Amino acid sequence: MDVVSFARGVPAPECLPVEAMAECARAVIERDGPTVLSYGPGGGYAPLREWIAARHGVEPARVVVTTSSLQGFGFLAEELVGAGNRVFVEAPAYDRPLKILARLRADVVAVPLDDEGLDSEILERDLREGPPPAFLYTNPTFQNPSGRTLSLERRRHLIEIAHEHDLFILEDDPYGLVRFEGEPLPTLFELGGRGDRVAYASSFSKTIAPGVRVGYLVLPRELAARVEARAVGTYISPPFLTQATVFEFLSRGLFEANVARVNGLLKLRRDAMLASLERDFPETARWSHPQGGYFLWLDLPPEIRADDLQVAAEAVGVTFVKGSDFFAGHLAGEHEARFAYSFVSPEEIAEGIARLAPLVSGAAAPAPSL
Amino acid sequence: MDVVSFARGVPAPECLPVEAMAECARAVIERDGPTVLSYGPGGGYAPLREWIAARHGVEPARVVVTTSSLQGFGFLAEELVGAGNRVFVEAPAYDRPLKILARLRADVVAVPLDDEGLDSEILERDLREGPPPAFLYTNPTFQNPSGRTLSLERRRHLIEIAHEHDLFILEDDPYGLVRFEGEPLPTLFELGGRGDRVAYASSFSKTIAPGVRVGYLVLPRELAARVEARAVGTYISPPFLTQATVFEFLSRGLFEANVARVNGLLKLRRDAMLASLERDFPETARWSHPQGGYFLWLDLPPEIRADDLQVAAEAVGVTFVKGSDFFAGHLAGEHEARFAYSFVSPEEIAEGIARLAPLVSGAAAPAPSL
Repeated sequence: MDVVSFARGVPAPECLPVEAMAECARAVIERDGPTVLSYGPGGGYAPLREWIAARHGVEPARVVVTTSSLQGFGFLAEELVGAGNRVFVEAPAYDRPLKILARLRADVVAVPLDDEGLDSEILERDLREGPPPAFLYTNPTFQNPSGRTLSLERRRHLIEIAHEHDLFILEDDPYGLVRFEGEPLPTLFELGGRGDRVAYASSFSKTIAPGVRVGYLVLPRELAARVEARAVGTYISPPFLTQATVFEFLSRGLFEANVARVNGLLKLRRDAMLASLERDFPETARWSHPQGGYFLWLDLPPEIRADDLQVAAEAVGVTFVKGSDFFAGHLAGEHEARFAYSFVSPEEIAEGIARLAPLVSGAAAPAPSL
Repeated sequence: MDVVSFARGVPAPECLPVEAMAECARAVIERDGPTVLSYGPGGGYAPLREWIAARHGVEPARVVVTTSSLQGFGFLAEELVGAGNRVFVEAPAYDRPLKILARLRADVVAVPLDDEGLDSEILERDLREGPPPAFLYTNPTFQNPSGRTLSLERRRHLIEIAHEHDLFILEDDPYGLVRFEGEPLPTLFELGGRGDRVAYASSFSKTIAPGVRVGYLVLPRELAARVEARAVGTYISPPFLTQATVFEFLSRGLFEANVARVNGLLKLRRDAMLASLERDFPETARWSHPQGGYFLWLDLPPEIRADDLQVAAEAVGVTFVKGSDFFAGHLAGEHEARFAYSFVSPEEIAEGIARLAPLVSGAAAPAPSL
């Protein structure tokens, strides 16, 4: 029995533009070899930095291109967070940054999400009740893990709060372009005037390929210089081959068409996931309805614990990530789960959900032996 | 006037195998695209890991391929060093690891070098006199910054000391293959039986290209697993494109010929540097005579301070790194300097040394206005 993975938040292999990237890599080494194959600026391959800067309407010195946006998050967190400093995150939140914050011994304050995204009223209350935080980490669009998107009204409220409470926001936006339908919302970075209040992080993992490990930060200028110095102290300069190959892909005009192609492939998967859940899952389960991204969030029937279901699911060849993995240091999400539809085919999605259905319906609860 | 840089410890552009790397990058994406362009093991591209393991006679699980060996050093140091822990280094030593150790608030103990490399008698005395160190960091072959090489007798003594005092050694060996003449010496890793006493670090920066940022660690197995977990937590997986391109270069059999070609180019430069110094520098200056690597170490005439000379040299268009940059947190090297011959051409080397000659001869000390 083939395993159906709803655990892997990675693109299906057919999303990867293999032929084009092979040609871009060759071309960029031939054209710019001595630069691409040598040391250089810690903040990244200059032409890519300029492309990103132009796209976001900032000067290139505010862009730091890092070996994955996670590594960029690490640099930024190390700059901003001392032991005991408060950092606001979402509940649930992407688990890897939570682990970095735990390593830095930050005092992590989790603000709950609802269907409109981060609850800005609760954030504001929490801001009033303690010392000023180092920053708020938020993934407002097609969030990992929940697939939820912060509403426009909440986005505006968040920017108001940031100004009123002198709050620095890190907007992590790897999925923003992975939109299947509906109108794009302005980013927090844009609503904040592209200034010093909101830092912006993204990557080419979802729009070109994750294996290139090209992420970036757009930061206030002085902070960008500090993060770049930290990059230099960590790896001297990043691998320019991957960054230059990405730049070649962009400058050949392949980016927008590739994003459209990838979004088409992913929309089929999202549709298969929603249709299968609708067909097979009981009415006592609820799930988010993302208009883009890789994930949806499942509220299981109240009698089903996610960790029990995980064990039972593995026995029928289905994997997912239990909700409790995405909460920072407190017990929550015990009846919730993250389902990724990005990696598996529509047929596998239907098959996987059908396998799970008997395990989540009250009529056929998992046998105690599982 | 063109600047002659004896500061840049980087290969001359003609050392970079541009055409071959362009073809290798294309080929490896075409052949193994879905792996190369996706996430994967944090410890590196599996075929490269296996190649390195075979080369060093260990199992692949002991190899962690990192985005530069400096990043590998950082991971290892973070695993091994707590604030206040003693770490032994060389005096002088490569400056970037010293900065990482300072960030970790290690208690850095610097053991002097002489013409035979690290003074193992002094190391042994220091080991007796304080708490056991986390490790010794040493670059025994064609050392950065001094160009000096640890003698075979000292290597054997060091391994004896390691066993007797339960000392863990990190042997950093990026230059070992960059040998122009003379017989290769066994590495500490080899003398230590490829076991758990000596960790080994190297990279492809000097033998293929620094811009690929492919370094590696060979570690005791349990430590390799911890370092790999740290890599996963930092960047999920490294960029496989660069690692796979390096592997393609290796598996096409291009490596040994490229190392021979690069060594030929660098030997011309080393020869030009030694001949120029012999011809132009006063008898009161002394310098190391490296059989390989990128650097030589200059003991200036006693009346010349390296920082004064640096200012005067810049006025005549010559740069180098002053010795004091390579000592950990104590004043030393004030009359010493690191000269890299790797980047400049033989003609530029002769020109640069000729420009410096009047500044270091007692007859023409730098004018006070400089």
